[in-house]
Amino acid sequence: MALESLRYRRGSLEVLNQRLLPGQLRYERVGDVQRAWAAIRDMEVRGAPAIALLGCLSLAVELAGGAGPTEDLGALEEFVGQKLGFLLSARPTAANLGREAERLRGWVRRRVETPGVTPKLLRESIIEYIEGLLDKDRRDNRSIGAHGADAILGGLPGGGPVTLLTHCNTGALATAGYGTALAVVVGADRVAANGDVANKIGTFQLAVAARHLGIPFYVAAPSGTCDPTLASGDLIPIEERPGTELTQLGGVLLADPEADVWNPAFDVTPHELITGGIITEWGVFAPPEACRAVAERGQQ
Amino acid sequence: MALESLRYRRGSLEVLNQRLLPGQLRYERVGDVQRAWAAIRDMEVRGAPAIALLGCLSLAVELAGGAGPTEDLGALEEFVGQKLGFLLSARPTAANLGREAERLRGWVRRRVETPGVTPKLLRESIIEYIEGLLDKDRRDNRSIGAHGADAILGGLPGGGPVTLLTHCNTGALATAGYGTALAVVVGADRVAANGDVANKIGTFQLAVAARHLGIPFYVAAPSGTCDPTLASGDLIPIEERPGTELTQLGGVLLADPEADVWNPAFDVTPHELITGGIITEWGVFAPPEACRAVAERGQQ
Repeated sequence: MALESLRYRRGSLEVLNQRLLPGQLRYERVGDVQRAWAAIRDMEVRGAPAIALLGCLSLAVELAGGAGPTEDLGALEEFVGQKLGFLLSARPTAANLGREAERLRGWVRRRVETPGVTPKLLRESIIEYIEGLLDKDRRDNRSIGAHGADAILGGLPGGGPVTLLTHCNTGALATAGYGTALAVVVGADRVAANGDVANKIGTFQLAVAARHLGIPFYVAAPSGTCDPTLASGDLIPIEERPGTELTQLGGVLLADPEADVWNPAFDVTPHELITGGIITEWGVFAPPEACRAVAERGQQ
Repeated sequence: MALESLRYRRGSLEVLNQRLLPGQLRYERVGDVQRAWAAIRDMEVRGAPAIALLGCLSLAVELAGGAGPTEDLGALEEFVGQKLGFLLSARPTAANLGREAERLRGWVRRRVETPGVTPKLLRESIIEYIEGLLDKDRRDNRSIGAHGADAILGGLPGGGPVTLLTHCNTGALATAGYGTALAVVVGADRVAANGDVANKIGTFQLAVAARHLGIPFYVAAPSGTCDPTLASGDLIPIEERPGTELTQLGGVLLADPEADVWNPAFDVTPHELITGGIITEWGVFAPPEACRAVAERGQQ
């Protein structure tokens, strides 16, 4: 049974507080957008897809509970826009949340202009739209797993056994249920147009070792991580974490207090080291083709 | 100021309890061989050179305190032999301690046969022999640092600046005072005749990354880690640590209790990846020549 980062049913949302792991396994109620904002800022939830889902689902919970204007379409649209803008201020680098918020705003705009839509219908359809995101996340993860298994096992006589090395929180906690890289080798936070990939620090070194040993190296990435606006991995912004993550443990100093620390959270793996391919929910692509293929599918 | 793993003056020995790091910095008195045996077995002290020194110095402390036969040369020799044999049972893979014990036994044998030696003189000379090991460890570390700095800085115009990556406990705690690899890139637990090197797990991956990036890769190794009886790294025995080191933290389960774990403490880096060289207290050697060169120096 996979560990779930989020538990949702209409009107009710809980988040697994990842700050308490592994000492405690505790789900906490997220009753509104304010609470989701705090969970994102304080890193109770991690992983770009899960952050996006938590934010959007908290808005669905507010709407299901009756929050916001009930009489005026424009006022309800504005309410949704303000809530999404507030969520984005929690962790500005959370790219997936930004993209989902932008899409949701555009979709609401079009719904408002659709003849016959009432505030009650709009509210209901926003909730359903957001619930659709959760369904899509789970579907995409299963697809990535299936495509990855096909690609990896397809090259083996008799289908196995196969030994897989995975790296970082690419499993169930980074998305809403199934995870991506448990069915393959590493995940991805951002994929540039040329197929370079930013992922948790250490990924580059694994890719180098895999090439040295002649082992195929795959990246499992939902299409949403593709960013065709970045020509290459050099342009991907890399979050730098506080040095105290390395110099302290539980408040105890581990290093010379004068030590300078550079603590990047991610590294960039050049596309030529991704010898297996990039596994998306739409199939496995050669790295330089992944973003283009995903963009073409997205327009269909 | 380097952190010392051992503190010694004649008749007095303390060990830094590394099991308590980083929470506590506590030196504990080692009054006899029995206490040193427990410190080695329980891994309060780590690193092959430090283990060898702690064991031998605890014997020197016992002898300085008057333990053992005082009237009979043969009985004193046997006493020393028994104490060394007992120390070796604490952690059978501690190769340096085994080698030092064997040398000390041989040296005592020759001293016993020297005309004019009394039990009192023998006792005094054993203590001095062991204190000489401590001095040699410190001298060797300074030499390794100097040779390493010459080799690394020698290739640079103006002598620097230079960025060094070190890996594992190759610093002051693994030997008695200065450490080896802080002046260079990684240390070594065992060097085979062909120059393959066993060191803390992760070393191989660093060596592969260094070659990929065109960065010279050095191994800093006191000559005592060279083992010319092993033709290649395949023959180096690799200690396997308990799986609970990975599945538990502070007694809390982090993984599925059914998960199988393989937790090797070391890996083997093939000599062709050691592109910089092996730095010993006698100079820097190409890996396939290090063991031979060290053996030749040892016979002089």
